Amino acid sequence: MRTVAVTRIGSLRDPDESARGQVGVVDFPDQPLGDEDVRIRVAYAAICGSDPHLAEGFFGTDVPIGLGHEISGVIEALGEKAHRTGLQVGDRVAGNFLRFCGTCLPCREGKQQFCEHIQDYNRPGMAETITWHESQVYKLPDTVSLLEGCLLEPTSVAVRIVDKTNIKVGDRVAICGGGPIGQLALQVIKMHGATSLTLIEPIAERREMALRHGAEHVIDPVGEDQYTRADEITDGRGYDIVIDASGSPRAVRGLLDIAAKGATVIYGAMYPAEFEMPLNLSDYLYLKELTLTGVFVSPYAFPRALQVLPHLELAELTQSVFDLADATEAFAMHMSGRFAKVVIRCNDIADSAASTSAVAGGAE
Amino acid sequence: MRTVAVTRIGSLRDPDESARGQVGVVDFPDQPLGDEDVRIRVAYAAICGSDPHLAEGFFGTDVPIGLGHEISGVIEALGEKAHRTGLQVGDRVAGNFLRFCGTCLPCREGKQQFCEHIQDYNRPGMAETITWHESQVYKLPDTVSLLEGCLLEPTSVAVRIVDKTNIKVGDRVAICGGGPIGQLALQVIKMHGATSLTLIEPIAERREMALRHGAEHVIDPVGEDQYTRADEITDGRGYDIVIDASGSPRAVRGLLDIAAKGATVIYGAMYPAEFEMPLNLSDYLYLKELTLTGVFVSPYAFPRALQVLPHLELAELTQSVFDLADATEAFAMHMSGRFAKVVIRCNDIADSAASTSAVAGGAE
Amino acid sequence: MRTVAVTRIGSLRDPDESARGQVGVVDFPDQPLGDEDVRIRVAYAAICGSDPHLAEGFFGTDVPIGLGHEISGVIEALGEKAHRTGLQVGDRVAGNFLRFCGTCLPCREGKQQFCEHIQDYNRPGMAETITWHESQVYKLPDTVSLLEGCLLEPTSVAVRIVDKTNIKVGDRVAICGGGPIGQLALQVIKMHGATSLTLIEPIAERREMALRHGAEHVIDPVGEDQYTRADEITDGRGYDIVIDASGSPRAVRGLLDIAAKGATVIYGAMYPAEFEMPLNLSDYLYLKELTLTGVFVSPYAFPRALQVLPHLELAELTQSVFDLADATEAFAMHMSGRFAKVVIRCNDIADSAASTSAVAGGAE
Amino acid sequence: MRTVAVTRIGSLRDPDESARGQVGVVDFPDQPLGDEDVRIRVAYAAICGSDPHLAEGFFGTDVPIGLGHEISGVIEALGEKAHRTGLQVGDRVAGNFLRFCGTCLPCREGKQQFCEHIQDYNRPGMAETITWHESQVYKLPDTVSLLEGCLLEPTSVAVRIVDKTNIKVGDRVAICGGGPIGQLALQVIKMHGATSLTLIEPIAERREMALRHGAEHVIDPVGEDQYTRADEITDGRGYDIVIDASGSPRAVRGLLDIAAKGATVIYGAMYPAEFEMPLNLSDYLYLKELTLTGVFVSPYAFPRALQVLPHLELAELTQSVFDLADATEAFAMHMSGRFAKVVIRCNDIADSAASTSAVAGGAE
Repeated sequence: MRTVAVTRIGSLRDPDESARGQVGVVDFPDQPLGDEDVRIRVAYAAICGSDPHLAEGFFGTDVPIGLGHEISGVIEALGEKAHRTGLQVGDRVAGNFLRFCGTCLPCREGKQQFCEHIQDYNRPGMAETITWHESQVYKLPDTVSLLEGCLLEPTSVAVRIVDKTNIKVGDRVAICGGGPIGQLALQVIKMHGATSLTLIEPIAERREMALRHGAEHVIDPVGEDQYTRADEITDGRGYDIVIDASGSPRAVRGLLDIAAKGATVIYGAMYPAEFEMPLNLSDYLYLKELTLTGVFVSPYAFPRALQVLPHLELAELTQSVFDLADATEAFAMHMSGRFAKVVIRCNDIADSAASTSAVAGGAE
Repeated sequence: MRTVAVTRIGSLRDPDESARGQVGVVDFPDQPLGDEDVRIRVAYAAICGSDPHLAEGFFGTDVPIGLGHEISGVIEALGEKAHRTGLQVGDRVAGNFLRFCGTCLPCREGKQQFCEHIQDYNRPGMAETITWHESQVYKLPDTVSLLEGCLLEPTSVAVRIVDKTNIKVGDRVAICGGGPIGQLALQVIKMHGATSLTLIEPIAERREMALRHGAEHVIDPVGEDQYTRADEITDGRGYDIVIDASGSPRAVRGLLDIAAKGATVIYGAMYPAEFEMPLNLSDYLYLKELTLTGVFVSPYAFPRALQVLPHLELAELTQSVFDLADATEAFAMHMSGRFAKVVIRCNDIADSAASTSAVAGGAE
Repeated sequence: MRTVAVTRIGSLRDPDESARGQVGVVDFPDQPLGDEDVRIRVAYAAICGSDPHLAEGFFGTDVPIGLGHEISGVIEALGEKAHRTGLQVGDRVAGNFLRFCGTCLPCREGKQQFCEHIQDYNRPGMAETITWHESQVYKLPDTVSLLEGCLLEPTSVAVRIVDKTNIKVGDRVAICGGGPIGQLALQVIKMHGATSLTLIEPIAERREMALRHGAEHVIDPVGEDQYTRADEITDGRGYDIVIDASGSPRAVRGLLDIAAKGATVIYGAMYPAEFEMPLNLSDYLYLKELTLTGVFVSPYAFPRALQVLPHLELAELTQSVFDLADATEAFAMHMSGRFAKVVIRCNDIADSAASTSAVAGGAE
Repeated sequence: MRTVAVTRIGSLRDPDESARGQVGVVDFPDQPLGDEDVRIRVAYAAICGSDPHLAEGFFGTDVPIGLGHEISGVIEALGEKAHRTGLQVGDRVAGNFLRFCGTCLPCREGKQQFCEHIQDYNRPGMAETITWHESQVYKLPDTVSLLEGCLLEPTSVAVRIVDKTNIKVGDRVAICGGGPIGQLALQVIKMHGATSLTLIEPIAERREMALRHGAEHVIDPVGEDQYTRADEITDGRGYDIVIDASGSPRAVRGLLDIAAKGATVIYGAMYPAEFEMPLNLSDYLYLKELTLTGVFVSPYAFPRALQVLPHLELAELTQSVFDLADATEAFAMHMSGRFAKVVIRCNDIADSAASTSAVAGGAE
């Protein structure tokens, strides 16, 4: 089965081509269909910001490493006992690349994000088919196209980020970082009560994209003084909620200063493994009583992500589409930063959905 | 000082004119300006659904009873010590008709809604001026007109209702009752993550108004089977949040059946004093684990109501405006139900705001 | 395999012996050991207040109906894949009679209490052995005896009741009903911040038992005026938390009047299927802003129930012990009400625990 | 009026006596009794860990600086309008040295800890009398002695710390630092559901004191490997709640490693103004999803602190008592660290309470 995979470990940005990481299409064995499993013919698989980290060997160095965990597709087979949720062959679906075991202590405490067997069904989805446990699979709403549906997983992350903010309607919100998670978090928190909603992002195109989809203000942290701007926007009070979706050590440093007293600050990205942010306990935790927390993965959020998905504007996140055979070019486009999101079409599947937001374009 | 007041106790609907309650304009003494007080020249005062209950003698029968607690205006005087919030003569303001004393036990527990001295500054606002304690007064945002600003108080009630739902983004929501609080709660919860948002309301005009302002579905509980419709809309799961804004014994009976397992049901209206809703503990609290609660008044919600106000569409709620001298006619219009809201212009004040949503019309 | 079962449908209290329900020991087929299952040799199985309802045919009328869901024992076999939690043959364990499927929508929303396949592994535990899915089984702490361990399940219910109260340290608490769940909830909320802790219970022995285990006050609702007493105890403020563990229509009626403004009232028992409690919306939900909710089953609570168990005083709840062969007598003793709890010894197993609280006695 | 005050700025630990800070008794003008004020004849005022920071000039350098904010006493006069809470001359009281204005935006948002006029009534309480606004004064329960009552304020801090943990019953808890706040937080969280309760503290006497009052385990971070010990105590899971009451840069560094995945860590002390704790975002906020927060002051917590107070064991915290005239010696004793708490008797007042826990001793 053709599968997109890392075929050589290395940075995808390495200027030395001989040392650069490589992504290509490889033949992988078919994934077995267990009794409680569901086989999905993959329609689309989106490239995630974490995929290049796999190329760098972050989670292991034995190539080939199959890629792809943001997928949509159509069910082509069901295991004998995969009948708990009423799924049928032909259903348009998306899902969670993680299966929660339900048996380990964290699962039984209601903390599936810490499931001790979380990787058991984590399989590459940039492939002709993927086979998941039934509990990982969700039927898409009729109004969500297969192309949009491959964004269910990053949307679930945005939903979990918003959940952890404990936002109340009317709270002032700033988001740092205008990549895919930042843009999705912005749209999700816009529909969940944010006011004075501000994106902080150095790239002009991403700021403009945010303004088209709900941001009331944008700040260029390079060209502007973000403290002064934040002060103006919030009448000197600061933001009640600050979300970092940048993962950037430079960007996160100033965020505690634009947070209001008593604010919640969510670290919603991956950070360099060795990076230590200096945290002044007296200023930020004692005097300002800030709450700092983060998000790893997104259990419990998928059912609501499915409810949210039809309310999002996803055309700009799905306009760059490549065929599976062109995966190498797709990753090159991803690295160029030209599009917030690049999608791989794994199979050409007719879509019955009322696809309202897909936009022609990209490298097609 | 001219003040709108109940001048005869009785139902405003009484067909017998000689027994019918009466509302008129009466001369009241000026309210004293204490050291920490603020005198406001009233621009607009909206009629509240609870005002006719005052005419019926619900809170006392000694006429005249001054009316009006949803007001906006311009500051014309400040007490010597009214300097804690930076208010200035000339500021455009609205506020809370209740002053929380800050000293009784409920206030010190963070439960101002149960303040034991809540009535000390509750003064009639359908008047030429009103004098409040500084803590009751909020400066309006520049983009909110004085006409819109008189809806700050009912908006704060909608905000508190939404606060008590503990809604998560993507939750399915139904609202029962399309009067002013129902319409405002609908708009506020729409901007706070509601999906499958449904208004249940027998009057067609109110259903249509809801559809113009964010409802995805409407149910006519008289002409339709609301259980079947709710089932269709929610894929058989029921609503995660149900808000009653009807106050109607007939309407509330079926609401627990359209609630999802584990749902929260908010009783957000006034109910007949003697009405007892039969509550099957086994079905609704044991097997379905519903949570039932209510809202009395709205402390802590005003600052966020001010943030929310510029995001609401208020033109349809402010289109019927009468002069103070025509208060009797204004109440007659209110009783006719033709407009969701009727507003009294207490003074003719030039408004510096960028009034974007006011609509000509009403009885003017 | 010998199993305690309902052998004739009928009330265990029926004075007409020919119509009375019957409980006896029956031979049941062995339960199959699936790959992910655990077979437990049962040490003790406690009679639950809901067991007599099964005799009445509440959940079905096809006899024999196997009984027993509060059990402890020792693992005697493990399925091939039952290795996620590190359980070993010989481990002393207790558990949850319900298995949550992990796949249905409620499970994936974090609401396992509404699992759609909750009954799949609900097997009779008053038997020589019971076979459960690994996810249902928890290793007992070394300091908890097998005899005490059979109370893990009702303790988990008490923990979930306490979870739903959202109690803050220092809140005033009343519990209505001094049966096993009432007594356990009293001990658990005593160790979770309750003050002015009061048990309301007509039976003197149960009131005295509560006073021995943490109650600061008791009220006899028959011999005393509970409103006056509650007023005295709470300085006229009422209780911040009221828990009903009585299940009695008569007892629940007055509870809303002893609740403080803003209080939470938990209905934590089973109620007659047809009983409707008259609920004055104006008084209790509007003016007092009470929150009413209930508890069905106790997912997510078991790991913490295991932490709580060594802190409870369980001797009085485990002093009446009968052998499996004497199950009929055990149920007769249960119906007599002489002991808060009656336990059946299903096998005679040597216990390695430091059993500190077992008390000789009962019918032995 | 005789008042204890800093009379020379400097560290109380300075070995150079000529540069050392000095504390003595000074004559201060009487505090005015406003209409809403209450004058209290002070019985006891406890020395707080923050008092030596005042000597160092932390909050200003103009001597004399009056001291004392943990006080109890008896009302000797009431302003004309100080009648909202029913206080009477002769009442035994304690209170909050901060008055919340009720008018600034934070107060109206329900965030009194950020009140913008918090210092208006902050007056020295180590004095013959203190005059507070009525909202700052609470009547002591009959069973709490005046000597114990002077600990109401630090108890309220412990209550607020516990509030912010969001602890559930059965959660594992560690507290770092065995000074007065650490000891009080330990007792308060012990009565609010903590299990595996552990004090981390290098001084043996403080560890032993904790074991006498509810700690199940103690760790000496100098003599033991705290990670290994924490692992053993928590079965390798870590603590669900970690509270720092040490304020020590050295002590706080390791706390995130003993926290369980998903744990809450509360910074509940004052920290050196310039200290920055290095925080690895990837390890602690992303992978472990920890929540970090802090506590400044304790609004809303006093009414429940009054409920909690009779449940605490306070004898060891009130055994070192000095007369007002001996304030210099009292501060020397405080600096010696021999007692967890040192108390100054400001007036010799007969106490009607059933004082059950006072212990003879100290320097008397």
